[in-house]
Amino acid sequence: MASSEEMPRVRRSLSTTRMEAFSDGVFSIAATLLVLDIAIHPPGTALEQVLHAWPFYFAYVVSFLTIGAAWLGHSQLTEGLTRTDPLLLRINLLVLLVVAFLPFPTKLVADAIHSNASERVFVTMYGLALLAIRILSFALDAYARREHLYSPPEAGEEQQDEPREVLPVLGGYLVAILIGLVLPRVAIAIYFGVALYMILFRALPRHPLRAHRSRR
Amino acid sequence: MASSEEMPRVRRSLSTTRMEAFSDGVFSIAATLLVLDIAIHPPGTALEQVLHAWPFYFAYVVSFLTIGAAWLGHSQLTEGLTRTDPLLLRINLLVLLVVAFLPFPTKLVADAIHSNASERVFVTMYGLALLAIRILSFALDAYARREHLYSPPEAGEEQQDEPREVLPVLGGYLVAILIGLVLPRVAIAIYFGVALYMILFRALPRHPLRAHRSRR
Amino acid sequence: MASSEEMPRVRRSLSTTRMEAFSDGVFSIAATLLVLDIAIHPPGTALEQVLHAWPFYFAYVVSFLTIGAAWLGHSQLTEGLTRTDPLLLRINLLVLLVVAFLPFPTKLVADAIHSNASERVFVTMYGLALLAIRILSFALDAYARREHLYSPPEAGEEQQDEPREVLPVLGGYLVAILIGLVLPRVAIAIYFGVALYMILFRALPRHPLRAHRSRR
Amino acid sequence: MASSEEMPRVRRSLSTTRMEAFSDGVFSIAATLLVLDIAIHPPGTALEQVLHAWPFYFAYVVSFLTIGAAWLGHSQLTEGLTRTDPLLLRINLLVLLVVAFLPFPTKLVADAIHSNASERVFVTMYGLALLAIRILSFALDAYARREHLYSPPEAGEEQQDEPREVLPVLGGYLVAILIGLVLPRVAIAIYFGVALYMILFRALPRHPLRAHRSRR
Repeated sequence: MASSEEMPRVRRSLSTTRMEAFSDGVFSIAATLLVLDIAIHPPGTALEQVLHAWPFYFAYVVSFLTIGAAWLGHSQLTEGLTRTDPLLLRINLLVLLVVAFLPFPTKLVADAIHSNASERVFVTMYGLALLAIRILSFALDAYARREHLYSPPEAGEEQQDEPREVLPVLGGYLVAILIGLVLPRVAIAIYFGVALYMILFRALPRHPLRAHRSRR
Repeated sequence: MASSEEMPRVRRSLSTTRMEAFSDGVFSIAATLLVLDIAIHPPGTALEQVLHAWPFYFAYVVSFLTIGAAWLGHSQLTEGLTRTDPLLLRINLLVLLVVAFLPFPTKLVADAIHSNASERVFVTMYGLALLAIRILSFALDAYARREHLYSPPEAGEEQQDEPREVLPVLGGYLVAILIGLVLPRVAIAIYFGVALYMILFRALPRHPLRAHRSRR
Repeated sequence: MASSEEMPRVRRSLSTTRMEAFSDGVFSIAATLLVLDIAIHPPGTALEQVLHAWPFYFAYVVSFLTIGAAWLGHSQLTEGLTRTDPLLLRINLLVLLVVAFLPFPTKLVADAIHSNASERVFVTMYGLALLAIRILSFALDAYARREHLYSPPEAGEEQQDEPREVLPVLGGYLVAILIGLVLPRVAIAIYFGVALYMILFRALPRHPLRAHRSRR
Repeated sequence: MASSEEMPRVRRSLSTTRMEAFSDGVFSIAATLLVLDIAIHPPGTALEQVLHAWPFYFAYVVSFLTIGAAWLGHSQLTEGLTRTDPLLLRINLLVLLVVAFLPFPTKLVADAIHSNASERVFVTMYGLALLAIRILSFALDAYARREHLYSPPEAGEEQQDEPREVLPVLGGYLVAILIGLVLPRVAIAIYFGVALYMILFRALPRHPLRAHRSRR
């Protein structure tokens, strides 16, 4: 009994530990660096400046929640891994490359909305970055499935069919990118909605039964 | 004996580990990014510039101690967890969202005090951010209690009634926000006092007896 | 059987754990700070500004992949360690000192390509930083070998002769630094190629057999 | 035998783990943020600009090595801990508060040397920050000794008398601060020397015998 409870720890490779540590580092730093993009600008009273900076707060929240949702999905994925392999680590590096890039288009979008400037290009760039994070995250998951890197499902446990869940998120991003070419602010609202959707509905534990059993 | 000592490690879920890693990342980065807000400005001799920058040092210390106190409370909370659940992870993301935001109002407040500018709005924003961190931290704790995510109290261990401790901190913040509308510098002094209070008096171990027993 | 599987965890010293934590911190922060170097500049339409900023994206990708490859190599190295010693920790600090420095020449190179300015000096500085990371990483590995800090190779496991692998990378860097004195943009292309080479071909697990065995 | 080897892991409290994680975060971020202070300035050719920026590189190296030495000492300290207590966590927060502050005086010193400006004030501030890091680190160690938070020395193990080692470092800092009031550049050279001294001679394992025994 005691030894079966320890199994998950023992079976996890050290590579998994460091993959998680490096990934947690990039996710948390990218999320925290977003604050450096927030700025207030004259003219106006202090109150006006603070209120007119709403696009910066909004873009901060959308990007933070998107990174948070990506981190939730990533932590569920790595939790199910029994081992890593060289290609998985490389796909993971690509995910992190785009996650770490996100503060840049976030800043462009917020700047553009704030100054009523040409938002379309920046919003499209932002949408493409979000889309890339999702596609690469799905690739990470698909590769781990194909190579049997996950721990096998236990009896009574339902194996989730991840790709079917993917469609609403990918579809939402594609629609938003197209809409953003005409109505960039509507696209930003959709990105916010998708982030909320992923935070609220997608981020469920992959193996709820086993999780509860091994933790009580 | 040996196996009972290992219990706390074995019972902790991997989700808890990554929740802690991501949270530690955000807390430590937000605390360290505060230094980027510190700046000296002409005119004046070097000594005058350094001394006149006191609002930046003061705001740095207040925000660092506030984040430090929030981290202390957070580490005590997660230490008592036997497992996490999806909603707990989401409330935690909200806590981190506001913690990671803190460098921005910190900078506004320090800039404003330094240039004798309209401080009230910025100090109010700062106070609201501090208040949000506390309320969300309490929500995290309350949810973990309600869902029985903490390890059960052992015999001879006093169960702390957290909500009663909450009142002086929340009350202090509310009073300071109101005072800040008229006397912003007094409000900042109160925030410093609350941070010291939390560091000095609130940050006691939740389970002092068990903690000592399992560690010796 | 169970106890032999646990061996790798038990034999690893705590120093190794913190060496990894600090290193993961520096690697992930340096990689994520690279995004702060990306900027767009007038004049031009938004689309022109975004497209003309390609040197920043390219430099971001080259440096991110280089840091990623260095991290992959570093994680394989520390995974094989059974213990650390004081000199290993110091060589490691030197590796990290240069890794953490990389965002600075990255920015210089991107700025220079973007403004068609004197690239040669900056590209040379960038190449020297990349070369230093590799030489110090090899020194870290060579020292760990000489001091027998790695776990001994098991039966049936081929001991890799690291120094032979080193030559293409070091040679590529040296050639690129010389070429960069005349054709700086060609040098940057070589650095990109070397980063891809390291990501794609060098980052193989040191002990593939043992890794798989202990993880299943 | 196997269980005695596991002892150090089992006896370590979870608080120690998070204290290390948060501390590693602050140390590695502060060390990596130093790169943001490096800048080149016109006029001059690219080569002149890069060479004239030597004070930035030098200050980067001095501060990075100082933080690295402080991290080495900190990791040795926490490795010997069997448990933490609330006051130790608070003293640790003070250490981190000053470590995270270091990028600011580092920038001031480098800027001042670069522009031949009034260095004395900035160099004094820098020296006081270094002195504070050392004094607080010693306080952390002294408190852990007084409260018996360290694992007891084993037979055949020599108990180090830390305070005697302290004198050359504290003395070096005090002398450098005084010298810096007249000859600021000499003081910077001393800080570099002290950082090298701490890296090269002080950072020896506290418990060399036990360390080797438990790791082989």
